[in-house]
Formats: sequence, structure tokens, C-alpha cells
Amino acid sequence: MSFSLSGNGSQPPSLLDSLIESLKCLPGVGPKSAQRMAFHLLQRNREGAKTLATNLERAAKEIGHCKSCRTFTEHELCSICSDNSRMKKQICIVESPADVFTIEKSTDYKGLYFVLMGRLSPLDGIGPKELGLEVLEKRLAEQEIEEMILATNSTVEGEVTAHVLSEMARKHGVKTTRLAQGVPVGGELEYVDQNTIAQAFNARKHY
Amino acid sequence: MSFSLSGNGSQPPSLLDSLIESLKCLPGVGPKSAQRMAFHLLQRNREGAKTLATNLERAAKEIGHCKSCRTFTEHELCSICSDNSRMKKQICIVESPADVFTIEKSTDYKGLYFVLMGRLSPLDGIGPKELGLEVLEKRLAEQEIEEMILATNSTVEGEVTAHVLSEMARKHGVKTTRLAQGVPVGGELEYVDQNTIAQAFNARKHY
Repeated sequence: MSFSLSGNGSQPPSLLDSLIESLKCLPGVGPKSAQRMAFHLLQRNREGAKTLATNLERAAKEIGHCKSCRTFTEHELCSICSDNSRMKKQICIVESPADVFTIEKSTDYKGLYFVLMGRLSPLDGIGPKELGLEVLEKRLAEQEIEEMILATNSTVEGEVTAHVLSEMARKHGVKTTRLAQGVPVGGELEYVDQNTIAQAFNARKHY
Repeated sequence: MSFSLSGNGSQPPSLLDSLIESLKCLPGVGPKSAQRMAFHLLQRNREGAKTLATNLERAAKEIGHCKSCRTFTEHELCSICSDNSRMKKQICIVESPADVFTIEKSTDYKGLYFVLMGRLSPLDGIGPKELGLEVLEKRLAEQEIEEMILATNSTVEGEVTAHVLSEMARKHGVKTTRLAQGVPVGGELEYVDQNTIAQAFNARKHY
């Protein structure tokens, strides 16, 4: 713990103020939480603060995108793409790296992924190029892929994106599937929105 | 953005995993928020992440305690203690640096502070020494102080601490005051707890 001797006179913002200010760049963190976090770290967990600082800096500098699936990784290929036990014939298309986490945690899917890092949204200037669709098309052309699982979000943009992707897959003779839509498991019908009910009703299955 | 070439084989946890793990040291941040924060920083705000890293590291290393009032500062004296326009004859005793922020924001108090960095709590091993009471006593003995404002929390430990401090002040012939207790401004009686109502009722004032 070191002290500088410039405590007098008109000062730039104090280090504590700067720390609180910069904690506000975290999503969901306002002035009050930022202040609480700063005091907590200074009073109880300086080691944690140092580790966090190191990891933040390294991550911001070193983490790029997997050259095969575009998810976040500090390596050339992410851990899934470089894992030889994964089935190379299935490819699941998701909008964000968080979706990869979610599917890995919830399912026993053993195929590969492709992360769009967004969804088609021409008004926001997000077209096929921004989503790396040429990288995906190259994979469809060069690799032996049997199934493309469309796991984009169930929003309007997600559906449009899925449609465009399915056209691309058809061109290369690859079968496409889409996540099933219906009532959430454990959900009560009363609280499920109308569109979902209508969709689930129309897609009812033999039981 | 740089890529290392060690993408294969059994790996230590990825940088992304380490980042998510270390974000969990922030109070109120669980696995889900930590993940959201990591993705947000990587996708939208790498500059913010770098600034935060720098400030965290500097704060953890450089911020110590003001030698006069014990609040957090990277200097020998904090900005309040080194401000010559503050009245040196009033001293307000608070439990934590956050309380200094709160009083500075809510009131027009122009005196000095003393930050206990805790409260008397013998069972937790927090006695007069941990709270720096000898530093405070030295100030009472050496400086010309007219009023000591006891702004410890209104909890059992806070009250005990205030009592001990008032004894110390009496020894040095310093007048003590305590924050008023009563119903919160804007509060409805129906939702105020019984102890507070009883206290406010007994301490009712001419109107």
C-alpha cells in the first residue's frame, strides 16, 4: 500500500472516483452498485480485484474469434472446434457465444457450432457479411455436413435469419432442422402468450 | 486482437472462463450476471474493460487510508482533510467511507470526518484499536474541536460504539451530538417499524 504526497490543491478525480466511474461500464451496474462494489473490493477483497484486473486486461487484448465457428476464444480454434471427439457432421447455428454456453449446459449435443455474433437486421446495417455467412458457406461447401440445426432466437429477426440460412443449406444439399416451438416445460397454459399457444396447438403431436 | 496457437489438447480454463469466474468476486454478481458482463464487455466495450482493469489494479495497489480520518484515499490526506475551507472544529464520526459519501451528498456539512472502518464488536475481535480510536483521541487532545457528531449506524453495535465515543469526548470536554431518530421523511406510519414509531413518539417535538 503506497501513498503519494500530492493530497493538496485542486485535484483530478480521485482514484476511488475513477474506479466507481469505470465500474459503471458493466451492464446493470448503476452509481449505487458501482460504489458498493468499489468499497467491497477495497475493504474485503483486494486480491480478487487484482485478479479481475489481470483477467479483464488479458481478455480485452487477447480474446478474438474462433476462425472456424466465430465464438470467443483466445486461441485460433475454440475448445469445441479443436475437440476431436465432437461430431463434425452436425453444425448448430446460434446468434451469440452465450447461446453456445446455454446449449452446452442444457443438452447432450456433441456436434459443432457456428456463431453469427448477431442476426440479420438490414436497418442496423447487419447483413450476411457481418454475420460471417461466407465463412459458413465455405464450411458447407468443403466439409461433409449432414445436418444444420437452426438455433437462432425465436424473434422476427431470428426467424428471418433462420430462413436465409436454410436457403443456403438447401443450395449445398444439407438438411436443416429448427428448434421446436411450443409451451415451456413446467409452464402453466394460463400464463403462456397467445402466439406460443397457437403455435403449440397447431404443432400438436401424437401422444 | 491476437491469437495464440495452442488451441488443441487438454487446456487450462479458457480466458473467458477465468474472466467470468473472477467477475463473480463482485458483490451481487452470480454466474449468470458474470457471464452477461463478460460477453457485454467483449462484444461492445473492450475499451471500458481496459480502463476498468487499469483502475482496479491501481486502486487495489495504491488506495490506502487517510492518516487523519482513515477514509480511503491514494494520498496521505484525503481531499476533505486537505481542504482548507472545511471547518476544523466539527468532526463527524462514521462507520465507513460510504457513509462519508452519503453525508456529503445529502447535507451541507462543512466539517471534518473520522471513519471507524467498522463498529465495536468484541465477538468479531473488533475493539478500539481496530477502529483507530487512539488516532481519534490524539485529534481530540491536540486539535481544538468543539463538536463531535456521532453518525454511527442506528444498530445495537452502532449505538454501543456511539456511547463509547461520547465517553471519550466527555473526557476531553468536547460536546457530542447524535443523528436524530424518527420516522423517515416521506414514509407512511403504517409501514414504519414499531421501535422507530415508539422512539419518534417519545421524542416528539413542539410544532
